[in-house]
Order: sequence, then C-alpha cells, then structure tokens
Amino acid sequence: MSENNSTRGDMPVDEFRQLGHQMIDWIADYLKNIEQYPVLSQIKPGDVKNKLPQQPPETGDGLKNIFDDINNIIMPGITHWNHPGFMAYFNSTASGPGILAEFLSAAFNANGMLWRTCPSSTELEQLTLGWLRQMLILPDDYWGIIYDTASVSTLHAIAAAREYAGEKFALRKKGMIGNSAPRFRLYCSEQAHSSVDKGALTLGIGIDGIRKIAVDEKFRLIPGELKNAIDEDKANGWLPFCVVATIGTTSTTSIDPLDEIAKICNAENIWLHVDAAYGGTAAIVPEMRCILNGIEHADSIVVNPHKWMFTPVDLSAFFTRKPDVLKRAFSLVAEYLKTTEQNKVESYMDYGVQLGRRFRSLKLWFIIRYFGVDGIIERLRFHLKLTQDFAAWIKAHQYFKQMAPAPLSVICFRAVLKNKTEDEIDKLNEMLMNNVNSTGKIFLSHTKLHDRFVIRLAISGINTKEKHVELAKTLLDEKLNELKNNG
Amino acid sequence: MSENNSTRGDMPVDEFRQLGHQMIDWIADYLKNIEQYPVLSQIKPGDVKNKLPQQPPETGDGLKNIFDDINNIIMPGITHWNHPGFMAYFNSTASGPGILAEFLSAAFNANGMLWRTCPSSTELEQLTLGWLRQMLILPDDYWGIIYDTASVSTLHAIAAAREYAGEKFALRKKGMIGNSAPRFRLYCSEQAHSSVDKGALTLGIGIDGIRKIAVDEKFRLIPGELKNAIDEDKANGWLPFCVVATIGTTSTTSIDPLDEIAKICNAENIWLHVDAAYGGTAAIVPEMRCILNGIEHADSIVVNPHKWMFTPVDLSAFFTRKPDVLKRAFSLVAEYLKTTEQNKVESYMDYGVQLGRRFRSLKLWFIIRYFGVDGIIERLRFHLKLTQDFAAWIKAHQYFKQMAPAPLSVICFRAVLKNKTEDEIDKLNEMLMNNVNSTGKIFLSHTKLHDRFVIRLAISGINTKEKHVELAKTLLDEKLNELKNNG
Repeated sequence: MSENNSTRGDMPVDEFRQLGHQMIDWIADYLKNIEQYPVLSQIKPGDVKNKLPQQPPETGDGLKNIFDDINNIIMPGITHWNHPGFMAYFNSTASGPGILAEFLSAAFNANGMLWRTCPSSTELEQLTLGWLRQMLILPDDYWGIIYDTASVSTLHAIAAAREYAGEKFALRKKGMIGNSAPRFRLYCSEQAHSSVDKGALTLGIGIDGIRKIAVDEKFRLIPGELKNAIDEDKANGWLPFCVVATIGTTSTTSIDPLDEIAKICNAENIWLHVDAAYGGTAAIVPEMRCILNGIEHADSIVVNPHKWMFTPVDLSAFFTRKPDVLKRAFSLVAEYLKTTEQNKVESYMDYGVQLGRRFRSLKLWFIIRYFGVDGIIERLRFHLKLTQDFAAWIKAHQYFKQMAPAPLSVICFRAVLKNKTEDEIDKLNEMLMNNVNSTGKIFLSHTKLHDRFVIRLAISGINTKEKHVELAKTLLDEKLNELKNNG
Repeated sequence: MSENNSTRGDMPVDEFRQLGHQMIDWIADYLKNIEQYPVLSQIKPGDVKNKLPQQPPETGDGLKNIFDDINNIIMPGITHWNHPGFMAYFNSTASGPGILAEFLSAAFNANGMLWRTCPSSTELEQLTLGWLRQMLILPDDYWGIIYDTASVSTLHAIAAAREYAGEKFALRKKGMIGNSAPRFRLYCSEQAHSSVDKGALTLGIGIDGIRKIAVDEKFRLIPGELKNAIDEDKANGWLPFCVVATIGTTSTTSIDPLDEIAKICNAENIWLHVDAAYGGTAAIVPEMRCILNGIEHADSIVVNPHKWMFTPVDLSAFFTRKPDVLKRAFSLVAEYLKTTEQNKVESYMDYGVQLGRRFRSLKLWFIIRYFGVDGIIERLRFHLKLTQDFAAWIKAHQYFKQMAPAPLSVICFRAVLKNKTEDEIDKLNEMLMNNVNSTGKIFLSHTKLHDRFVIRLAISGINTKEKHVELAKTLLDEKLNELKNNG
C-alpha cells in the first residue's frame, strides 16, 4: 500500500514523477518490442475478468502491484492496434507525438465546453481544424468541430439535415411526435457504414426512413438510381432530406461519385453529408485530392484523424458549411453556463449533444507539427504504394483473386480453388483468415461481397513496412497450402 | 526539424523515450506549481489563435519548439481544472493514477468496439463497472457500460425509454416519421440539466414533448405535481414514456425524492432514469447512500467518475436494469464486424451510438486500486465537511446569505445589502464573482434561483484543502468590501 493513501489529496508529485518515469520506460519498451506480442489477442472469453478480484479493494495499492497485473493479466488480453501486423478493419495507429500529447491533455484535464473553461482548447481546435481544412483543400466556408467518433459526427450531420428540412414544420418545438413530422427519408448506398443507419435510428428516422441505393460493379453508389429513388419517393409523399455519400466504404473503400451526387442534392435542396472518415485522409496527398471533387457542393464531411492520420482514439473532425443549422439543432444555454463573453466567442457545446469536451486538438496539433504536411503525405503515399504492390501480388497469384478495386489502402480478395463450390470456398477463406490470425503475426478481417466471404487486408499503420506485407503474403501462402493439402 | 522526419514510420522509440522523460518532468512540475498559474485563464478572445501560424507547417518540427509554444502561448489560455482553487461548475480534477492510466491507454490505442478488438478493454470495463456498482450499492441486476459524457449517457437512457414504450408501435422499423409515433412525453424537474432537453431534442421528442415539473422550496421535484401532470397528459392523448430524476442538480445539487418518483413510474410503467452524474459519487460514502434510496425501482442511472471521482475526462458510467432494451434500440451488426465468438461475448458497440471506444476502464481501475474504496470515501467525506464549514461561515456572515440547501459539495449564496434593490443586488453579486475570478486565485461560477443571480462555490477538487476554502472566504470578503466602499 502506498503511504500517501492515509492522507488526503492526490498522489504526491514526487511519487507521480517517479512512477511517470517508470511508465515512460515501460511504454517505450512496449512500443519497441510490440512485434513480440501476438497482434490479435489469443485469450479465451473471461480470461481477464476471471483472474481479477470481483470486489473492489478496500484499501489502496501501489502501482507496482497494478503493473504486475497489467503484465500478467491485461497484456495477454490486448489486441495491439499499434502493431505493424494489424491489417484488419481500418487499422488505426497512434504515433509517438500523439501519445505524448494525450498524456499532456490528461494532465490539463481541461473541459472545453465554453470558451472560458479553456480558451486554448477552443482556439487550438479552431486553428488545427483550419489547418486540416487547408490540407484537404476544403472551401473556406467549411467550419469545423471535433467530435469523438465518426458515428457521432454522422449523427450530428443527419440531425442538422433534419433541422434544415424540418424548420418549416417547427421540428425543434414540435418534435416528431404524433403526426407532426413529415415522412423524412435518407439515402445512402448499400455499402454505407452502419453508423448511418444507427444515426438515423437514434434520430427517429426508423429503418423505413432509410433507403439504400444500389451500387455499380465497383461498389459505388449509382447516381441515376439515387435520382429515381428521390423522384419516386417524392411522388409517394416522402420528404427526401439527407443523402450520405461515402469516400472509402468500409467493405471495399469504394468511392461514391461525389460530384454527380452533389448535383442531384443541390437541385433538390437536400443536405449532402460526406462520410470520408477513413478515405478523406488520402485527399491530403495531392494526386489523390480528386476523391473529394464535388465537396464544394456538399453540406458536411467527416474525416477521422484517428483512423489514418496517426492520432490516438478518439478524434473525429467534422466540417459543415451550415454551422448555423447545426447550432439551431443543438444550442441550449442553461443559466449556469452563461458568460459575459458569450457573444464574442464560440463555445463548442452549442454545436452538439456533448457538453463535456476533452482537449483533443492538442494531439492533432502535435502530429501535424511534428511530421509536417509533407511528412504525413510521404507516409500516406507509402501506404498507397504498399497496397498497390500487394494488389499486384494478388493479381499474379495462382489462387488468390482480387474481389474489388483497391483505390485506397485496403484490398479485398479470396482464394478460389477449382472443383469447389462457392460455399466451400467461403468456408476455406474463413479458415484461411482464422489460421493467419492464429499465428499472432498478422491480423486480417473480412467482409461479404455479393454474399460471398472475402478477406480484407488494410495497410495504414504508421510502422507497417514492406517486410510486414511480405510476411502477410508468406502466411497467406503457407496457410492456404496447409488447407489445400488437408482438404 | 527532427531528423527522423525524412524517413517513414513513427517517431523513433529512443526519441520517444527521451521526450517522454522530459514530458514527465514538465507535467510533474506543472502539477507541483499549479497554484502559481491563474486558475481561470485571463486572456482575451483570439490571444491563442492569433499568435500561432494560420497555415499548417510543410515540414516537421521538433518537440522543443512545440513546447516553447505551449509555455508561451497555450499555457496562458488554459483554465486549470486541476487547480485547487477551481470551485466553479462541478469542478472535476484528474488524479495522478488517472493521468498515468490515460497515458497507458493512449499507448495501447485500443478500440474496444468488439470483444476481440481488445478483450481486456471489454472485460476490464465489465469488472470495474461491477466494482463501481458495488461501491454505489446498486442492485445486482444493474448492467453497466462506459460512455464519454453524461449527456451521451442520458441520451441513451431516453432512447432506451423510447424503445421500451415504442415497441408496440414498431418504432425501430417505422421511426417517428409521418404519423407513426405516439405523442411521447418526458418529465423532469425545472432544475434538471440541459442535457435532458438536448437528448430529447436529438431523439425527436421536441420541446413540446418535454414537460418540466415544479420544484419545492428545496428545489426538489414535487412528486404530486409529477403525478398530476402524467394523469392530465394521459387524458389528453399523450404517452408518458420517461421520467428523469436528478440526484444533485447542477444549480443547487438538490436531490429529487427518488423513492416517491419511482413509485409513480412503476405504477405507470414509465422508464425512470436517474441523473446522478455529479451527486451519485457521494453515495459511495456510507452515511450518504440514502440519496439513492429507491434506485432499486428505477431503470437506469448515470454517474460520472470524471466529475467527482478524480478521473480524467471523459468517463461516464451508465447502468441499466434493461440492457436488452438498450441493445434493441442500437444493435446493428455489419458483416465486417461479425466474429466467430460473437454469441459468447459481449460487444459494447451493440449498446450505443458510438462504434469506436477508447480503453477508458483502465483509468477507473487504476484510481479505485490506487486509492482503495476507503481512500475515495475519505476524500469525498472531506469535501462534504469543507462544504459544511463554508456553509457555517456563510450562515454567520453579516452580508452573505445561503440561497439553497447544500446537501452535497456545492453552496449557493449571494451578498444581500440593505437599501439596494434586487436588481442592484444581482449586479453587485455578478461584479463580486467577476472580481474574485479576476484574481486568478479562485474560480467561481453562478446560477439563477427565482430569477436572481446567485454565486455557486463547488468543493470537489482532489487537492482542495482548508486553506483554499479560507482563501475563497478572504477574497469574497475583500472584494465585497471594495464594492461596498466604491458603490
């Protein structure tokens, strides 16, 4: 038991300093040796929880014992997102400057709900989002705010769209109860992220209020189908109020034709939200900026630096050209939150569900400053190149077949063996993926395309190098051979 | 410029280690000397933003230059939430073990959306929430999840209530569009937090769907008024679906009579959510547990360890006895998120808007282990005592008058001078508060009670001691004297 526990107050600063230095070394060693750990945790359900006391301790304990538990119990249950062999989902890695900034942010413990509760939090958020806006070449009239996750950013986008279309129904006052709400309808492609559905459900749009639009052979929303759906719905008494286009879908990273979609939305005065949570980051690379063509005609966009810009979770950047609508949907200023300067400053609490706000801009500022825009571009370009190299390997492979275009840093593929049914091939690829994951060297995930099991390999880890992609190839070959020989 | 910026990959581990040790010393010095900084930032709007480059840097920079900017530009714009003179709002402080745990969490950068994406995150969340549940003596059937903020917890509570009442209207499928939704109505006291309104607005309930119930002379919801409102609304075609009771309102920390409210809700089968974001923590102290009497008849409760339990923002603990309803409202499992073990484990993404989830339980676990339950109780009890001491001082004071009961750790008071109108007294107290805040020694905030300006003083900082409360008294006396003599 630590001595200071018998006195009031916090951990003594000297103890904090000593433990802090120990922790720095622990973390530095962890990051240095991260490849010695299995990237995907290999434990069984319950292995962590059942090894720890089910009752809280009455008396305090020292950090040494806590760290013993971390080493022995917590570590085996960690899936290491910063491991260069993490190639599942959209693998998201935290860079050194980002980790250090998070530490500093925790020490400040500032809550930037109002300007005065931490002016630096509000103003650094304005500044760094201005930087990110310039890096993405978004028009000047895009105003920015940091939320926690893309799901929350998209929820806010749809809420703003609802407010925009609902104003003439006095939606804020009357709500959507009884028969006061129009028959709102939202559109996105069949390949859009589940957060679009979840946001719509939360906002009371319902499953019936979401219309999924068919995609082309490259898994991109078909603008003509969108136009037809809107026309048909209007004829049937629906109120089309929001379209979500995706730049980098989760399954295949397909890129919806933003420019054409924007034309339809503008003609109909429908809010266009762009989900570029993962893919948007690629637009920082000059030769990739074209993926955002048409953004000048959209209403809002989400880009997550915590996905592919080396920022520790969580940090989701949301930009909109209609911040007044967003504010109208969410602003509620209680007396205890009023300040003398409130008409001269921006208080981010007015633009969202959350009142409490962590000092998140600090880590984005550290990262952009430390790497520089050129350094970030160089790293993204390298990931794009590694992806094309892997795609070339798939193309030349005897058994693997690429199942979708790979415009960004994710490749979808599966092994195709002759004399096997499609169902058998599904099963084979699922086993192949699981067997690769069981090695603890590489972590892959999957999706389904045309209802068939497809392996996804994502390359966006800051420390992922050629050798890790080579290891992925080797393991895929090795495990496929084993399955072929055994099956 | 740091050398490694010309190569790919992250900051080299050796550089991370070196900078990390420097940062530990910087943070330890900061925490040691925090009282040398003005608790409330004294800068003018724009002072931070205008001193930094408006364009992002093309090339990378070293942490030394970044830290020069922190010292010279960022620090003056920080309002120091960990300063022991922070007595505004619900002052929230981050303890040493909590800060260290946040650092570790950033290094892991785990996203606990699914069990497999970080088993330790899911299982430690289950474990620590089990501990907190026991500390609060909540019944066993309360199931827990960590969200970011109380606003989000309450949003989820109201969403679950809407799903519970809306199931027979097929709400999830049909939504609240057209004439499909009943006339939902939600109840809370006039003193409830603005997050209740914000949650209801987000969910499409609308201002008209929120009915504020009158409070008694102690600012507590009057159960008889609630009963009457529900009866009247039912007679008029409304569907009462949710009541929010508050344990520790933001203005005065008044405590709604939970037991009586629960009886009304149970009789009517209305979801009862308890907003104990701030006050709930006090229930850990045995002699204060009575504030949660009746919780066994409620449906959900939010308690924020990031308010009064020394946990860095953000960490809001939400408990419900009907997790199946919450899951029904939010679960949507996309193919790319399916796993072989999904029927054997809990994946927290199924219970909320957010898919991405930081490893937040780590800091709660560190804090409970380091201080122990007894250590936490001792600190809370000390805050309760300091508050009563300050209340006694107010009571004995010639000019100050306590304006509401102080059952927890916040006191509402104002100076009352004879021969002044109520409006003049409002103005005087506002000036008094601003003048105290301008010293940079103590930071107070305000509210309005019966439409009159009232100063709030909150004591819940982990390093707030007798001497800081004494300093608040001295400054209040000193600044009041100045105003009296000048006015």
